[in-house]
Amino acid sequence: MPTPSVSIPTIGVFDSGVGGLTVLRALLDRVPDANYLYFGDTARLPYGSKSAATVAHYTVGAVRYLQEQGAELLVIACNTATALALDDVKRAAGVEVIGVIEPGAEAATLVSKNRKVVVIGTEATVSSHAYRHALEARKIAVREKACPLFVPLVEEGWVEHPVTEQVARIYLSEAFSKEARDADVLLLGCTHYPLIKPLLRQVTPEHVAIVDSAESTAQEVARRLESWTMGKTKPPLASTTRAGSAPHLRFFATDSAEKFRAMGTRFLGLSVEDVLHVDLKE
Amino acid sequence: MPTPSVSIPTIGVFDSGVGGLTVLRALLDRVPDANYLYFGDTARLPYGSKSAATVAHYTVGAVRYLQEQGAELLVIACNTATALALDDVKRAAGVEVIGVIEPGAEAATLVSKNRKVVVIGTEATVSSHAYRHALEARKIAVREKACPLFVPLVEEGWVEHPVTEQVARIYLSEAFSKEARDADVLLLGCTHYPLIKPLLRQVTPEHVAIVDSAESTAQEVARRLESWTMGKTKPPLASTTRAGSAPHLRFFATDSAEKFRAMGTRFLGLSVEDVLHVDLKE
Repeated sequence: MPTPSVSIPTIGVFDSGVGGLTVLRALLDRVPDANYLYFGDTARLPYGSKSAATVAHYTVGAVRYLQEQGAELLVIACNTATALALDDVKRAAGVEVIGVIEPGAEAATLVSKNRKVVVIGTEATVSSHAYRHALEARKIAVREKACPLFVPLVEEGWVEHPVTEQVARIYLSEAFSKEARDADVLLLGCTHYPLIKPLLRQVTPEHVAIVDSAESTAQEVARRLESWTMGKTKPPLASTTRAGSAPHLRFFATDSAEKFRAMGTRFLGLSVEDVLHVDLKE
Repeated sequence: MPTPSVSIPTIGVFDSGVGGLTVLRALLDRVPDANYLYFGDTARLPYGSKSAATVAHYTVGAVRYLQEQGAELLVIACNTATALALDDVKRAAGVEVIGVIEPGAEAATLVSKNRKVVVIGTEATVSSHAYRHALEARKIAVREKACPLFVPLVEEGWVEHPVTEQVARIYLSEAFSKEARDADVLLLGCTHYPLIKPLLRQVTPEHVAIVDSAESTAQEVARRLESWTMGKTKPPLASTTRAGSAPHLRFFATDSAEKFRAMGTRFLGLSVEDVLHVDLKE
C-alpha cells in the first residue's frame, strides 16, 4: 500500500506572515486530499517595504526549505512576493509555482461584464501595480485603491466591528468614485481581506461582484492537480484519495511559533498545532 | 571664529522609521542650537517582530554610522530599540546615549499623585514590559495597554478623524478600567502618538495628565547638554549659540529617500529636505 506522501500531493504554501492562511483555507476546501506545508516568514515581514532583490532572496530561500520538506507544488500566497519574485522562484524551484495575482486577475476578468475592476490591497501591492498590469493585459480598466488600515484591523480581530465598517465605507466610496463608478468587480488583492469579506459585501454596491484572490488561487491549484492526475503534465501522481481523512498540515514560522499558533488559528479557522520555528540564514 | 560643528553639539537621533521625528521635533523646541543627524532604518522596520540580537545588531550599526557622520550625543528615539538594545549601544558607542523609556518613566513618576500610570504603546513595546519595569522600579503601579491601530491610523494621516477618535475611546476605556480606573497619568509610549495628542486629550478622563516620552526625552537631552556646558562632564563644548539661525538637519534612510521625505514632513511638521539613502550591510 502506498504511503500518503506518495499517493497524494504535497503542496507548499508560502507567505511573509499569516495572511496566506486564507489561501490555505481556500485550498483545504478545494483540494482536501493533499498534504500541506505552510511557511510564514514572520520574523522578516512586512515584505512591502523591502527591495525586489531582498524579497526574491527571502522567498527563494523559503520555498527551497519547503521543497526540502517535500513540497511538489508551490503556492506563493503573498501579493508582494508574487509581484516581485515569482519569476525568480520559478527559475529556482524546478516544480510548478502558482502566485496569487494571475488567478485573481483572471477570475475578475471572467466575472466583469463591463470590463472595469476595482482592486484593493496594501500600499505595497498597489504601488507595485502588479494587478493593474495583469488586468490591463486582459483589456480590463482598473482602479487601484490602497486600504492600509484593513490589515491592522483584521489583526486586531475587528472583523465585524463598527470601526471596520466605517473605514470600509470610506475606502470603498473613494474606490468607486468618478470614472470607477460603474466598475462591477471588487478584487480583493490582499490575503487578509477574505476575513472581512462579509463586511465588505455589506458596504459594496449591490451590482458589484467580489472576487477573492485566495479563492481564485485555490481554484487554479485544483485545475493544475487535475491536469496532473489526467497524466497531462509532470509529476506523475497517483489519483488515490484519502476520503474522509483530515489533510495533513505542517507549519513553519521564522518568528515565535507560539505567536504564529495564536494568530494563525484565527486566519485558518482551524486549530493550528504543528508549528516549527525555523531560522533561515540571511 | 569657530565652525558650527565645533561651537554647537551634533546630536544623532536614531529610529527604525519616521516615528522618532516626533522626538526630533521636541528636541528642536528644547535645543534649537544644535546640528541634528536623523537615521531612519526604514528598510528593516518594524523592529517589534525581530529578536533582541537582531535589533541590537541593526541599532549598533546605525549609531556607528551616525558617529561617523559626527554625532557627539546619541538619542535612541525608538521604543523597541531602547528596550532591547540600549545597553549594547552604550557599550559600542563611547559617547552619551539617551533612550526614550527612562525619561518617559521618570516624567510620569514626577507627575503622578496617586502613583498609578497607564502606558500605551505598540504590541511590541507592551510585550517587552520595558515601561512596566522602569515604572515599578520607581514604585509606580502600571497598567499597560497595546494600541496597535494608532500607528497605521497616524500613518494614514487620520490624526483628527472620527474613526481615530472612536478607536481611541475604545482603547482608553479598556486602559482605564477596573484597578486602573484611578490612574492619573497616561504615558505615551510610542513615538507616533504625539501626533494624536490633541485627540487623546479629548477622550482621556480630565483628571489624567498626558506625559509624552518624546517630550520627556528632549528635556533629558537639554539637561545633559547643560551639564556639558557647565563643564561637569565630557565632551568640552563651546557655549556659543547660533541665535536666530535655523538648526542644521540631515536625514539618512535605508529605504527610499523620497518616501522618507513625504512621510517625514508630516511627522516633523517641517519640510524634510536633505535625505540621503544609506545601504547598511546586514
